Amino acid sequence: MKNRAAVYPVIMAGGSGTRFWPLSRHLFPKQLLRIIGDETLIQQTMRRVVHGAPAQQVLISTNPAQAESIRIQLVEWKDEIKDNFVLEPEGRNTAPAIALAALELVRRDPDAVMLVVPADHIVKGQKEFDAAVKLAAELAGQGYLVTFGIKPIRPETGYGYIKPNKRITVGKQGKLKGHPVSRFVEKPNAVKAAQYVKAKDYYWNSGMFVWRAATILEEIRHHQPALFKGIERIRELMQAGGMRGAIDEEYKKLAPVSVDTGVMERSTKSAVVPVAFEWSDVGSWGSLDEVAPKDKAGNIVGGRVVDLGSRRSVVYGDRRVVATIGLTDMVVVDTPDATLVCPKDRAQDVKKVVDILKQQGAPEHLEHVTVHRPWGSYTILEEGDGYKVKRVTVKPGGRLSLQMHHRRSEHWVVIAGTARVTRGDDVFDLQVGQSTAIPVETRHRLENFGQETLHIIEVQNGPYLGEDDIVRFKDEYGRTAHG
Amino acid sequence: MKNRAAVYPVIMAGGSGTRFWPLSRHLFPKQLLRIIGDETLIQQTMRRVVHGAPAQQVLISTNPAQAESIRIQLVEWKDEIKDNFVLEPEGRNTAPAIALAALELVRRDPDAVMLVVPADHIVKGQKEFDAAVKLAAELAGQGYLVTFGIKPIRPETGYGYIKPNKRITVGKQGKLKGHPVSRFVEKPNAVKAAQYVKAKDYYWNSGMFVWRAATILEEIRHHQPALFKGIERIRELMQAGGMRGAIDEEYKKLAPVSVDTGVMERSTKSAVVPVAFEWSDVGSWGSLDEVAPKDKAGNIVGGRVVDLGSRRSVVYGDRRVVATIGLTDMVVVDTPDATLVCPKDRAQDVKKVVDILKQQGAPEHLEHVTVHRPWGSYTILEEGDGYKVKRVTVKPGGRLSLQMHHRRSEHWVVIAGTARVTRGDDVFDLQVGQSTAIPVETRHRLENFGQETLHIIEVQNGPYLGEDDIVRFKDEYGRTAHG
Repeated sequence: MKNRAAVYPVIMAGGSGTRFWPLSRHLFPKQLLRIIGDETLIQQTMRRVVHGAPAQQVLISTNPAQAESIRIQLVEWKDEIKDNFVLEPEGRNTAPAIALAALELVRRDPDAVMLVVPADHIVKGQKEFDAAVKLAAELAGQGYLVTFGIKPIRPETGYGYIKPNKRITVGKQGKLKGHPVSRFVEKPNAVKAAQYVKAKDYYWNSGMFVWRAATILEEIRHHQPALFKGIERIRELMQAGGMRGAIDEEYKKLAPVSVDTGVMERSTKSAVVPVAFEWSDVGSWGSLDEVAPKDKAGNIVGGRVVDLGSRRSVVYGDRRVVATIGLTDMVVVDTPDATLVCPKDRAQDVKKVVDILKQQGAPEHLEHVTVHRPWGSYTILEEGDGYKVKRVTVKPGGRLSLQMHHRRSEHWVVIAGTARVTRGDDVFDLQVGQSTAIPVETRHRLENFGQETLHIIEVQNGPYLGEDDIVRFKDEYGRTAHG
Repeated sequence: MKNRAAVYPVIMAGGSGTRFWPLSRHLFPKQLLRIIGDETLIQQTMRRVVHGAPAQQVLISTNPAQAESIRIQLVEWKDEIKDNFVLEPEGRNTAPAIALAALELVRRDPDAVMLVVPADHIVKGQKEFDAAVKLAAELAGQGYLVTFGIKPIRPETGYGYIKPNKRITVGKQGKLKGHPVSRFVEKPNAVKAAQYVKAKDYYWNSGMFVWRAATILEEIRHHQPALFKGIERIRELMQAGGMRGAIDEEYKKLAPVSVDTGVMERSTKSAVVPVAFEWSDVGSWGSLDEVAPKDKAGNIVGGRVVDLGSRRSVVYGDRRVVATIGLTDMVVVDTPDATLVCPKDRAQDVKKVVDILKQQGAPEHLEHVTVHRPWGSYTILEEGDGYKVKRVTVKPGGRLSLQMHHRRSEHWVVIAGTARVTRGDDVFDLQVGQSTAIPVETRHRLENFGQETLHIIEVQNGPYLGEDDIVRFKDEYGRTAHG
């Protein structure tokens, strides 16, 4: 019996953060949210794939802006995945990202089998998931491009549907079977979708794939030759340590192509394994119904909510009070800087709201007032003309970089814990109620050597208060920009 | 022709702040809100009554907790009304408050005619208002207790209805006539209310009254003897400079009686003047429809709102983003620390929400994060265990009291303007970007001698951070407690 080829999970983690706005943001997309359970979606995804593969075989496909937040959330595996981030300068749909990851994998292991999983889906049933991956990997070894087929539970018009050719079974494992794909249908109309659900001969395309890295590259080269050449050029630039600008330029030239329509639907090698696990892509606030626990009236409620008689509604609050009275099938999501109110069946239009905010240049589409960093986090309490007030939290042992700002001074007041402060040539400790001022262009550092979490209030003054006004001299976390 | 008796407007300004929560609060009731137009309701009310009477004849009936906010809003008349506040220790409905004001008025002028007006109603038509007051004052001179009858425009079940005896006209002024009251009906059912509106022989009771102070006291003595005795005792205690505690005790013993049911409905002297001005008591978020300007889709919108296709809805935001999609007949009100979402026809239930918050001891029923003071205002940016962060705004020429705190230290960072700081024996100026620390139990003062508004960030540290930890040594505004 020949050795089975190693499976390399590739977590696709480059969401745009629009569907779950205002809880998600461009720099804090759905995968980073605790939608259900104690862990975020990407943490759940990581835990799911490392059940069947060593963590050092897991690649993370994302972009530079989101990588740091992902590293923070996957800190449990930080050493294993340290060098496993495949970064796209910007999202160009799935095919380019998958090609880039596949190129990296064949470099590491010419026989590598890739398991592509979105970072922000919910899967219930680890055993069933493992079994599906095992069968799919076997089919991948035979040269198939394998997708997982989910049994449809409603006539959803937003998904792709797959019809297996059930007369042919290309692989089998217990009750699980693999079949060649007979037909793909992308986003059918409501009538068609209802027929598919009724006929029970179509499956939802889950966006999870298993194939040999070498096979998918070959298929991309065949069906998307321009894309393939572009990716090869980019790969060469990256390996030669090319300038960021040049790589970004090349990337921008790529046509955004999805691996479904660009490759799977064109290939003769597509196969599908109808799976037994429960799945949801939690595509909108309205879809939470499928996966989140509800109260007796059918409400999904979190945070400081005072409700009188609402039904079947989603109400998410935080520290602020949210009072809801007599709502039916509504979504109310309240965050420190933005609130959304809409009927459940209009929840997909939140994307349009995000587009409007983006056009307005409003920061509320981009990130939260609380931003996580390797050393802790900061929360913007208020921003105004010439000043910014932050609460900065530093974990025990956390150290901000030794840094300097050209255009702002800072005042620090300790409100909990003990701060070790470097200011110019001085190093001193500040206790609760003590403070210091950091003038413009003065080297400084904030560290927490204590056992307790350090909290300070920082007041910034200056004509320009962007996070990019920073010169780093030393950093514990290997960063070259951003505080 | 004998001299007409002087008219003394009495503004009833003791709202509970529940109906317009979260925009109104217990310490910031509806009268202090800019519901419509550039002025708040109490400012509009003051302007309306001083059109026909000198400002020094206007009494303000309120409670100690709300008096300061009212003085700040009526600053235009601050000298005239300085000694005209009649303070109730706590609200006991309208009869005790009116009795207290009437006792003060007969002391000033035995012939005084009182014009009682709620501080938080909307009236359109100054000329029509003035004419109604003029006729009513004439009737008051004849010994009548006069109320203004509003032509009903909908079958409202929450109001009192008045039927005039139109066969008898007790006074006349142009088209306006006064009639004896034939019948009062308090809060009729929907069927009755609809009949009244249709029959055109009933009027809404507007809660505005005109009578001689001596007459109403006599009628209270007659119909509410226990209340009258209680008020006389309280009045004596007040004039003797009695202890606050003793007065409060007496006040608590009073039965809460409304002047409508307790006096007007029992008196043989009640008269009504059907009036020509437009009136609304803006009793709930839903009632804004009657008075506020609407967009094409019938929405009443304020603040940073991004809306997609809502209709006939009320959406009030502030600095935070509020995104609304496809709402119909809904109310969404967003404030820095609390958000309300409900259908318009449930808006009256916001009172129940406020009751729940009160039971929970939640600060969000009590006051806003921004609190106005004679010298400017402060906004709580964040409160946590052992610390509080405020932005403090001081008007040009504004001076906080020379004060000291027993249990907290403070740090001040100037973010705009120039601060004159007194700290212990030192007096010095701080410019933008400069800071100082005020240790526990150190006398200090913050002043703005500049032309520009001063803004500072204040970080408080200490085991107790209540506003009542203050010792005042000197105060420009005659206050003895609270910063």
